[in-house]
Amino acid sequence: DRCGYPEVIYAPGKSLEALNEGFQALLSANQNCLATRCSESQGESLKKNFPGAIYDTVARTVRIQLRDQRAGRVAIVTAGTSDRPVALEALETLRWMNVEAELLMDVGVAGPQRFLGVKHKLTDCDAVVVVAGMEGALPSVVAGWLSCPVIAVPTSVGYGAAFGGVAALLGMLNSCASNVAVVNIDAGFKAAYLAGMIAQRPTKQQS
Amino acid sequence: DRCGYPEVIYAPGKSLEALNEGFQALLSANQNCLATRCSESQGESLKKNFPGAIYDTVARTVRIQLRDQRAGRVAIVTAGTSDRPVALEALETLRWMNVEAELLMDVGVAGPQRFLGVKHKLTDCDAVVVVAGMEGALPSVVAGWLSCPVIAVPTSVGYGAAFGGVAALLGMLNSCASNVAVVNIDAGFKAAYLAGMIAQRPTKQQS
Amino acid sequence: DRCGYPEVIYAPGKSLEALNEGFQALLSANQNCLATRCSESQGESLKKNFPGAIYDTVARTVRIQLRDQRAGRVAIVTAGTSDRPVALEALETLRWMNVEAELLMDVGVAGPQRFLGVKHKLTDCDAVVVVAGMEGALPSVVAGWLSCPVIAVPTSVGYGAAFGGVAALLGMLNSCASNVAVVNIDAGFKAAYLAGMIAQRPTKQQS
Amino acid sequence: DRCGYPEVIYAPGKSLEALNEGFQALLSANQNCLATRCSESQGESLKKNFPGAIYDTVARTVRIQLRDQRAGRVAIVTAGTSDRPVALEALETLRWMNVEAELLMDVGVAGPQRFLGVKHKLTDCDAVVVVAGMEGALPSVVAGWLSCPVIAVPTSVGYGAAFGGVAALLGMLNSCASNVAVVNIDAGFKAAYLAGMIAQRPTKQQS
Amino acid sequence: DRCGYPEVIYAPGKSLEALNEGFQALLSANQNCLATRCSESQGESLKKNFPGAIYDTVARTVRIQLRDQRAGRVAIVTAGTSDRPVALEALETLRWMNVEAELLMDVGVAGPQRFLGVKHKLTDCDAVVVVAGMEGALPSVVAGWLSCPVIAVPTSVGYGAAFGGVAALLGMLNSCASNVAVVNIDAGFKAAYLAGMIAQRPTKQQS
Amino acid sequence: DRCGYPEVIYAPGKSLEALNEGFQALLSANQNCLATRCSESQGESLKKNFPGAIYDTVARTVRIQLRDQRAGRVAIVTAGTSDRPVALEALETLRWMNVEAELLMDVGVAGPQRFLGVKHKLTDCDAVVVVAGMEGALPSVVAGWLSCPVIAVPTSVGYGAAFGGVAALLGMLNSCASNVAVVNIDAGFKAAYLAGMIAQRPTKQQS
Amino acid sequence: DRCGYPEVIYAPGKSLEALNEGFQALLSANQNCLATRCSESQGESLKKNFPGAIYDTVARTVRIQLRDQRAGRVAIVTAGTSDRPVALEALETLRWMNVEAELLMDVGVAGPQRFLGVKHKLTDCDAVVVVAGMEGALPSVVAGWLSCPVIAVPTSVGYGAAFGGVAALLGMLNSCASNVAVVNIDAGFKAAYLAGMIAQRPTKQQS
Amino acid sequence: DRCGYPEVIYAPGKSLEALNEGFQALLSANQNCLATRCSESQGESLKKNFPGAIYDTVARTVRIQLRDQRAGRVAIVTAGTSDRPVALEALETLRWMNVEAELLMDVGVAGPQRFLGVKHKLTDCDAVVVVAGMEGALPSVVAGWLSCPVIAVPTSVGYGAAFGGVAALLGMLNSCASNVAVVNIDAGFKAAYLAGMIAQRPTKQQS
Ligand SMILES: Nc1ncnc2c1ncn2[C@@H]1O[C@H](COP(=O)(O)O)[C@@H](O)[C@H]1O
Ligand SMILES: Nc1ncnc2c1ncn2[C@@H]1O[C@H](COP(=O)(O)O)[C@@H](O)[C@H]1O
Ligand SMILES: Nc1ncnc2c1ncn2[C@@H]1O[C@H](COP(=O)(O)O)[C@@H](O)[C@H]1O
Ligand SMILES: Nc1ncnc2c1ncn2[C@@H]1O[C@H](COP(=O)(O)O)[C@@H](O)[C@H]1O
Ligand SMILES: [Mg+2]
Ligand SMILES: [Mg+2]
Ligand SMILES: [Mg+2]
Ligand SMILES: [Mg+2]
Ligand SMILES: [Mg+2]
Ligand SMILES: [Mg+2]
Ligand SMILES: [Mg+2]
Ligand SMILES: [Mg+2]
Repeated sequence: DRCGYPEVIYAPGKSLEALNEGFQALLSANQNCLATRCSESQGESLKKNFPGAIYDTVARTVRIQLRDQRAGRVAIVTAGTSDRPVALEALETLRWMNVEAELLMDVGVAGPQRFLGVKHKLTDCDAVVVVAGMEGALPSVVAGWLSCPVIAVPTSVGYGAAFGGVAALLGMLNSCASNVAVVNIDAGFKAAYLAGMIAQRPTKQQS
Repeated sequence: DRCGYPEVIYAPGKSLEALNEGFQALLSANQNCLATRCSESQGESLKKNFPGAIYDTVARTVRIQLRDQRAGRVAIVTAGTSDRPVALEALETLRWMNVEAELLMDVGVAGPQRFLGVKHKLTDCDAVVVVAGMEGALPSVVAGWLSCPVIAVPTSVGYGAAFGGVAALLGMLNSCASNVAVVNIDAGFKAAYLAGMIAQRPTKQQS
Repeated sequence: DRCGYPEVIYAPGKSLEALNEGFQALLSANQNCLATRCSESQGESLKKNFPGAIYDTVARTVRIQLRDQRAGRVAIVTAGTSDRPVALEALETLRWMNVEAELLMDVGVAGPQRFLGVKHKLTDCDAVVVVAGMEGALPSVVAGWLSCPVIAVPTSVGYGAAFGGVAALLGMLNSCASNVAVVNIDAGFKAAYLAGMIAQRPTKQQS
Repeated sequence: DRCGYPEVIYAPGKSLEALNEGFQALLSANQNCLATRCSESQGESLKKNFPGAIYDTVARTVRIQLRDQRAGRVAIVTAGTSDRPVALEALETLRWMNVEAELLMDVGVAGPQRFLGVKHKLTDCDAVVVVAGMEGALPSVVAGWLSCPVIAVPTSVGYGAAFGGVAALLGMLNSCASNVAVVNIDAGFKAAYLAGMIAQRPTKQQS
Repeated sequence: DRCGYPEVIYAPGKSLEALNEGFQALLSANQNCLATRCSESQGESLKKNFPGAIYDTVARTVRIQLRDQRAGRVAIVTAGTSDRPVALEALETLRWMNVEAELLMDVGVAGPQRFLGVKHKLTDCDAVVVVAGMEGALPSVVAGWLSCPVIAVPTSVGYGAAFGGVAALLGMLNSCASNVAVVNIDAGFKAAYLAGMIAQRPTKQQS
Repeated sequence: DRCGYPEVIYAPGKSLEALNEGFQALLSANQNCLATRCSESQGESLKKNFPGAIYDTVARTVRIQLRDQRAGRVAIVTAGTSDRPVALEALETLRWMNVEAELLMDVGVAGPQRFLGVKHKLTDCDAVVVVAGMEGALPSVVAGWLSCPVIAVPTSVGYGAAFGGVAALLGMLNSCASNVAVVNIDAGFKAAYLAGMIAQRPTKQQS
Repeated sequence: DRCGYPEVIYAPGKSLEALNEGFQALLSANQNCLATRCSESQGESLKKNFPGAIYDTVARTVRIQLRDQRAGRVAIVTAGTSDRPVALEALETLRWMNVEAELLMDVGVAGPQRFLGVKHKLTDCDAVVVVAGMEGALPSVVAGWLSCPVIAVPTSVGYGAAFGGVAALLGMLNSCASNVAVVNIDAGFKAAYLAGMIAQRPTKQQS
Repeated sequence: DRCGYPEVIYAPGKSLEALNEGFQALLSANQNCLATRCSESQGESLKKNFPGAIYDTVARTVRIQLRDQRAGRVAIVTAGTSDRPVALEALETLRWMNVEAELLMDVGVAGPQRFLGVKHKLTDCDAVVVVAGMEGALPSVVAGWLSCPVIAVPTSVGYGAAFGGVAALLGMLNSCASNVAVVNIDAGFKAAYLAGMIAQRPTKQQS
C-alpha cells in the first residue's frame, strides 16, 4: 500500500458484496480492516461474515484488528454527547492504527473547571484530536495549554447560525493558538489518521 | 429624548456644520454629548469648538461630560491590541452614560492563565462587554465564569477565513454559554449602550 | 451551580434514562427543572415520571416549578402564529426562572396599529424579548418606543430568501435602534435567559 | 425608442466624447437627457458643453429637461443622511420622466413618530420609493399604511453585518407587506423608473 | 381593511378551525376570499365547508369569488412546466382581485422563437408577471420588448448551482432592463398582488 | 510544449526580467508569444524590448505573432462597453492562436433586435465566446440560436447584487441551453483558449 | 429542430402521458430519444410502452437508438463509485448522440499511478468529460496531460465543506489548466452534450 | 514560555516601540526572535536596532537566530511565483524553529511532470507544507505520494471565483487524501509552526 497504512473503506454507496470483498482482500494481505460511515445493513453484513469484526453502531465503523501492539498516544477531547459519533469514529480509527487512544468527553468551553480537571491526561500525548460543534471554541482553549499538535474537527452539531458546522469550522481556522490545524466538518476519521501518523513517527523512525 | 439617554451622533457623512449644531443642541438641552466614528477633521473641529470636548483618536469618539456621578459597573474585556479601537469606543460610550467602566485588555483564549488573573474584577459587574475578533471564542470562555449578562462584540480583526468579522460573529451567536447576546461586527457603541442600560436599572428603578 | 440559575437540559440526543436522571438530580438539589427541545417521546416520558411536570408540546419544553415567587417583568412580543414555538420556549424559560412574563402575539410590522394598541404593556418591563422571522423588522420598530434592553430572536420561519432565519438575523444585527442585542436563530431559551437575568438584577442586588 | 421613455446613459466607463455624443443624439431626437453614475470629470464636461444641463454632484446625475409638464405623483422616503445619494438619483430620474416627485428624508424605523408626521403626504401617491440601508425595515413599516405599490431600494450604507446592502436586500425581499417589490442594491434609478412608469399609466391610457 | 384589498390568508401552520373562521369572517364582510399555500387537508376542508370555493391543487390556493367584474389586464409568463405551481398561485391571486389575467407558459429564453409568437399578447397589458427558475433570464428578455412594469418571480426550480432560487433571484435583480422589479423566491402571490394593484389604478382613480 | 499551444505568460507578480526572458525563450523556440494581465510598466517594457510586440492597453496583453495563417473561426459576443477588457483579452488570445476571430459588441439581452441583426455572423462559427456581466443572460439567449459550442465568460462588471461576477456566473451555469459551458469570472483568456482549440480541431485532424 | 440534435426530455415534473407523447413525437420525426432524470415509475412506463427503450436505473435515463453509426470519440473519467450516476448520464447522452464513448472509473487524484495507467486511452479523444465531487481536483490533473478540450462536471458527492458540490465547482472554475470549462453541479447531460458536439464537428464539416 | 517555542510577534497594529521591546525581551530570555507580517517601516526599524536581524521583505518577517543546530526536516512545496510570500513566511518560521527546511517552487498540478522530478526530495521529510492558491489541488496530488503529514495552506492568490482563497480552502478541506490538514488562508506561519512541531518530536522525546 501507498502510505504505510492499509486502505480504509468508505462505505456509502458500496454494495454488500463490494464491502465484503474489500475486507477479504485486506485480510489476505494480513492487514487490519476498517470501514467507515457504514449503514446498519452494511455493518450487520460485515459483522456476520467476519467473526472477529467489531461493529460500533454509534461510530458507524466496522473494524478487524489482527495485531494490537500499541505505539504512541493520542487523546480525543469533546464537549458533549452530541459530538459522540464523530469522536467515536476517531477513536475506532486510532485503535485500527494500533495507536493508544483515550476519549475525554464533557470537556466544555463554558465550564472551564471541567477542562482543568483532565488537563494532566493531555500533556503527555503525541497529538490531540479536538471534536466540537456550535462555536468550535474548544480547540483554542485546549491548545493554549499544550505543546503538541492539535487536530481540530468541526461537527455539524448545532442549530440556526451553526450552519451545519460552518461556524465551528471558521472558528477553528481562526484559532489564535498556533498549534491547531483543521479537517473537514465531521471528518473524525481524517483527524485521527493524521494524529495517529504523528504519534507513530518516533517509533517508525527508530525502526 | 426618546429612551432616557440623549441622542448619539453617528458622524460618517455628516458635515462639520451639522456635527457642531448637533453638539450645540445637546448642550442647550443640558445633556452629555457623544459623536462616534469621527474622522480626524470631524474630531479636530469638535475639539476646537467645544473646550471641554474629549477627542479619543483611537476610539474615534468626541465626548462632552456635563455630569459625572457614576452608577452601575461594566467591564470591557478584550484579547489584544488589535481590538482596541472597538473596545475604546465602548469605554467612551459607558463614560458618556455615567457608568463606571473598566477596560481589561490582553485576556486571550489560548493563554487562559491570563484570564484567571483578572476574573475577580468581573464578578461584581452588572454586565460585561467582550470584544474579540478572529475566532470570537473569548465571550464563551468569559461567560462560563460569570452570572451577569455578557454582551459580545465581534470585530473585523483577522485575516483569511476571518471574513471581516463573520467568523467571530458566528462563534458568538453559537456560544454554548446561555448568558451571551451579540451585536453587529465592530459595534462597540451598541454593546456598551445596552450594557450601560442594564447597569443603571437598579438605580433608575429606585428613583 | 455556576451562574445563579440551575442547569437547563438540552434534550436532543439524550436517552430517556439520562433525561430522567437529570431531572431527579435537579429535584434532589431542590431546584426548578427545565428541559428544552424535547421530542414527543422525551416529553411524555418526563411527564409520566414526574407528576408535577408541565409538558408544553408547542414549546417542546418540560418544566417543574418548585417555587413560584415572581420577581421582575419581561414581555415577549411576536408577529404571528408561525413564531409561536420559539416564543413559547421563551415564555416557559421565564416561568422557570420565576420571572413574571407576558406573551403578546400578532404584533406585526406592516399593521402598526396593532402594535400601538399594546405599547403600554411594554413600557414598564425590565426587558423585552422580540421574536420575528422573515425580514426581522419587528425589534427595530418595538425598540424605538422603549427605554429598556430588547433581546431579539430571529426565527427560521419564512421561505425563499428568508434562508432559514438568516434574513431576520441580519436585519436584527443591523437594527438602527441602539438598545437591541441578538441571539442565535430560534434561540428562544437564550433570549429569555438573558432577559430574565436582567429582570432579576434589582431584586438580587437588594438581597 | 423602445419603451416610451428615452434611453438613459449609464456613465461608468464611457469616454467624454461618447457621453457628449449621447446627449447630442437625444437632443436631436427632441428628448429629455439623463446620465447616471457620472464621475466629477464626466459631470463637469456635460455641464460645460450643454448650457441647460443640471449636474447634481450628490446624485451623480446630469439631466436636461426639454419639457416639464408633470403627471402622476411619486414620493421618495428615506431614513437618514447616508442614503441621500441614492434617494437623489431617484429624484432626478423622476424629474427627467416629468413625474411630480417629493423627497421625504429622516423618516426612520426606530423613531416612528417621525413617520406618523409625514404619512399624509404619502396617501395620495401613485407609487412610493423607499430607500434604506442597514436592516432595510423601512419599506415594511411604510407599506403597511399605504394602498399603492412600494418600490424598495436597499442601499450599501452600513457596516459589519450590513454586508454592503445584503442585509437590507434580504429584509426587503422578505417584507411581510404584500405591496413591496425590490430592485438591486443602490439602484435608485431603477426604482424611480418603475415608479414613474406606474404613476404615468392613467395619463397614458387616456391619451 | 387597510389597503383596499381584503386580507389574504397564509395557510401554513393554521388549524382547520382558524382557516374556516377566517373565510367566514371575510364572507360576512362581503369580500372575496383567498387562502395560499394550503396543504391537501386544508384545501379539502375549505372546499367541503364553502360550496363556492375553488381549490386549485397545483396552485395550492382556495378562493371564493363574490364579484367578478374584471378591470385591468395582467399577463403571467413562464418558461416551462416546473414553474407552474408558482404561476398558478399568481393566476389565482389576480382572479381573486378581479383583474383580467392570462397565463402564457412554455416561453423560454433558449428557444426565443416561442416568445416572439406570443409577444402581441403582452403589449396591451398593464403589468406583466414573469415566473422563472434556473438562470432567471426570462424577465430581461421579456422586459426588453415591453413598456409596462414587469414583476419578476424567481422560483426554486433547478438543481446544483441554482441554489434553490438564488441564481434566478440574482439574475433578476441585475436585469439590464430598467422596468423590472423583483419579489421573493416562489412568491407568486406577492408579484400578482403588486401587478394587480398597478392594473387597477386607472379604474380606481376614475372612481 | 505540453498541449499543442505554446505556454502563455500570466504577468501579475512577475519581474520585468522574468517577463522578458519568457518572451525571449518563446521566440528562440520559434513560437508566438502572449502575456496576459500586464501592468502598464510590464506592457511598456515588453513593447520596448521586442519591436514586433503588440501591446493592447485595454486587453492588458502583449503579443508577438510569428505566423499568421488563420484556421477555424470564433466569434466573441458582448453586451456593452464595460465588458470590453475581457472581450479584448479573448480576441488577442485567438489571434495569438492563429484562429480567425471577430468581436461583436453591443449585443444586449434587453434590446433583442440588436442581436437578430448580427445572428447571421454567428451561424458559421466553430465556437462562440459570450462575455457578459450583471445578470449574465446573454449566453442563454445566443446559444438558443446556434448549433456550435458556446463558452460563456461571466465578468465582474455590475454593482450591488452583481457581487463581482457571481450573479453572472450562476446565471450561466444554470443556462437552460444545453450547449453552454462556463469559465472563471473575467477569464477571457481561458474561454478563448478553449474555443480556439475547438475551432482548430478539424484542421489538426486532417494534418 | 433548433440545434442539430433532437430535443431531450427533462423528466422531473412531467406526467407519464406527457413523457410518452414526447417519445412518440420524436420517433415520428425519426429521431433518437432521450429522457433524463427519470423517476422509477417514469422509467418503467417508457420501457413498457417502447420495446426498444433502454432504461438505465443508475443513470436515470431512458433512451431509444434508431441509428448507431458512431462518429468522434469522447472519454468520461471519474474518481470513484459515488460519481457513477452522473458519469452514466453522460455516457447515455453520448450514446444517444451517436458518439463513441468510454467510461474510465476509479481514476483518483491521490493515487496518481491509477491515472498514469489509463492516460493512453485519453490522448486520441476529441474531448474528455471529467466527473468529480469533493475537492474537484481531477480535471486539473487530467487536463495537464491532454491537448483536447476538457469539460468538467462537479458532483454533489461529499460531506461537510463539500457544500453539495460547491467546493468541486469552485475548484474546477479555478483550474490552473487552460483547457477546462465547467458545467452545472451534477449536469452530466450538459457536459456530454457539449463534448459530443465538439467530437462530431470534423465529421459534420466534411459533409 | 507556554508551548516549548518562544512567543512569536504578530506585527500588525504594533508600535515600533512595542516591537523593539518585544525583541529585546526575547533576547534577554536567550531565545530566537520572530516577527511576522511586518510593514516596511516595522521591518527597517527592527533591522536597524538589532544588528543580527534578518529582514525578508517578501516574507515580511524579521528573525534573529541565536542557535542554529537543526533537527527534523520539512519541505515547503508551492506551484508558482504568486504564492511566494506565504511560502517564504513558512520558510522563515521553520528556520527560526531550528528545523531543516527546503522550498520547492514551481510544482504545479497541471504540469505533473514537474512534480515527479522533485518527489524524491519529499519522501524523507517529517512533514510537508503545501502552499497553493486558485483551486488548491496541489496538496491532494502531493499527499497521494507521501506517508507523512501534509499541512496545507490556501492562499488568497487568484481572481474571480477564487474568492480570496475560499476556493483553495474548500478544495483542501475536501481533499480525498487522508493525510492532509488545513490552516487559515495565507497562514504560512501556522502551517510551518505545526509542521516544525511534528518534525522535532522524535528529537524532543529522546531528550
Ligand atoms: N457607532 C454606532 N453604531 C451604530 N449605531 C450608532 C452608532 N453611533 C450612533 N448610533 C445610532 O445612530 C443614531 C443616530 O444616527 P443619525 O441620526 O444618523 O446621527 C443614534 O441615536 C444611535 O442610535
Ligand atoms: N489570464 C489568465 N487567466 C487564467 N490563466 C492564465 C491566464 N494567462 C495565462 N494563464 C495560464 O497560466 C499559465 C502560466 O502561468 P505562470 O507559469 O504563472 O506564468 C499558462 O500556461 C496558462 O495556462
Ligand atoms: N439533465 C438535464 N440537465 C439540464 N438540462 C437538461 C437535462 N435534460 C434535458 N435538459 C434540457 O432541457 C430541455 C428540455 O426541457 P423541457 O422542455 O422542460 O423538457 C432540453 O432541450 C435540454 O436542453
Ligand atoms: N502570521 C501569523 N498568523 C497567525 N498567527 C500568528 C502569526 N504570527 C504570530 N501569530 C500568533 O500570534 C501570537 C502573538 O499575538 P500578539 O500577542 O498579538 O503579538 C503568537 O504567539 C502566535 O501564536
Ligand atoms: Mg460543541
Ligand atoms: Mg480576538
Ligand atoms: Mg415575522
Ligand atoms: Mg437605513
Ligand atoms: Mg426557468
Ligand atoms: Mg452584461
Ligand atoms: Mg471526487
Ligand atoms: Mg496555486
